[in-house]
Amino acid sequence: MKTLIVYAHPEPKSLNHSLAELAVTTLEAAGHEVQVTDLYASNWKAALDASDYGPAASSPLRVAADSGRAFDTGTLTADVSIEQEKLLWADTIIFQFPLWWYSMPAILKGWVDRVFTYHFAYGVGEHSDTKYGERYGEGTLAGKRALLSVTVGGPEAHYSDRGINGPIDDLLFPIHHGILYYPGIDVLPPFVVHGSDRLTAEEYAVAAKNWERRLLELETTEPIAFRKQNFGDYEMPSLRLKEGLEERGQSSFALHVRPPFTPDEGPRV
Amino acid sequence: MKTLIVYAHPEPKSLNHSLAELAVTTLEAAGHEVQVTDLYASNWKAALDASDYGPAASSPLRVAADSGRAFDTGTLTADVSIEQEKLLWADTIIFQFPLWWYSMPAILKGWVDRVFTYHFAYGVGEHSDTKYGERYGEGTLAGKRALLSVTVGGPEAHYSDRGINGPIDDLLFPIHHGILYYPGIDVLPPFVVHGSDRLTAEEYAVAAKNWERRLLELETTEPIAFRKQNFGDYEMPSLRLKEGLEERGQSSFALHVRPPFTPDEGPRV
Repeated sequence: MKTLIVYAHPEPKSLNHSLAELAVTTLEAAGHEVQVTDLYASNWKAALDASDYGPAASSPLRVAADSGRAFDTGTLTADVSIEQEKLLWADTIIFQFPLWWYSMPAILKGWVDRVFTYHFAYGVGEHSDTKYGERYGEGTLAGKRALLSVTVGGPEAHYSDRGINGPIDDLLFPIHHGILYYPGIDVLPPFVVHGSDRLTAEEYAVAAKNWERRLLELETTEPIAFRKQNFGDYEMPSLRLKEGLEERGQSSFALHVRPPFTPDEGPRV
Repeated sequence: MKTLIVYAHPEPKSLNHSLAELAVTTLEAAGHEVQVTDLYASNWKAALDASDYGPAASSPLRVAADSGRAFDTGTLTADVSIEQEKLLWADTIIFQFPLWWYSMPAILKGWVDRVFTYHFAYGVGEHSDTKYGERYGEGTLAGKRALLSVTVGGPEAHYSDRGINGPIDDLLFPIHHGILYYPGIDVLPPFVVHGSDRLTAEEYAVAAKNWERRLLELETTEPIAFRKQNFGDYEMPSLRLKEGLEERGQSSFALHVRPPFTPDEGPRV
């Protein structure tokens, strides 16, 4: 296994750093190759702008078209090219970050905004009235797997099905489905540590043990069963889910996960 | 009305810039005061780190505690203090940005991460077994209103109830509810322009007209009816929504919006 760990926390003595380090040592001890992108240590440039595209930047700047031209002509900045190479090298990608305001820290969002260029992560494949690209299950990064390892300040109940913050799976859906599954990556269920600001040594020991177990199961863990775009589940060109494919009561984000099948029905797809 | 416009796009000739400018001229012509935070023009520092808290930064850094201490002692950096002052000054806040990877551009997320400090935007009010702070409907910014004005590349159907990207209201929930309603801000329905990469002059004219109308209705538009945390809808200490308060079929994020009442039932709260 070749694993890329993308890590975003400003403090080298943080819980997040410990979990990133534990991932490196656990995976290497199991004989896997590991590369780490430490966004804070490398002073990652967070804000996408025209300087990212060098001579491919038009005036006025057009983010999609210009980033695609820079990608095609190999004139993206070195920091971005290196990250794209790492993504192509890896078969597994781990993101280690604290949930800040129910999403990624800005520096990690800036990694996505800048590295996921047109023609690399989106704008891939035919776009016409009959096909809207290769995305959601297909694309440049198809066949790879990713996992979010997230630390969260609040208690688990606040993130449960009826919890006030919203269910953690739905809060992470824009990342899981919209960022990772979009260019083809299979997404594993997240690893979440709650109460991260008040973790006792005993609680850390339990979290570390659970994390080691998840790391050693990366290759066999079942991904979230997101629906592929181009295999019959969606109307064209609206890309609305066809009527009747969902389970009773499913709505919103849950519609885009295939319901589990029961043995006498057989698989639904 | 005192309006703060927080604007995030790198290109001064962009659709986003036109919409931000139209907001300034429309509101000023109607006699309102306007301030603008142009994140790219001001080269906003996106990545939160220890340098944000000066002498209040501890080693190891503790983001919540240290940002709270810096806020309490008035030692936050000037860029952050100025934004907090603008938020306190404003009664209405408009966020103008392109939806990149189903969320804010990194530079805007960095505005949230750094400006929304402990004791200012969170960690406000009593935290005990019987009360978990003043948030979700209460807090430092209670009584203010906010609106997201968002440009989106894809067509509207992809963001509809059954659309492949997920419904736009749910994609924006982590911002609407988790970032804005959390410190007390009432959130108006978003203004969304679709197909932003291919907008014709005629389509822009329509969008501009709709945007002017929304701007002139800011004071009278009904906010999204998010449920307040501390007024009986949630169990303590789990902060799970009490059973039976939802409408049939509501789940996930939708649970945290009060269902509309029908005249013979009367309001539910």
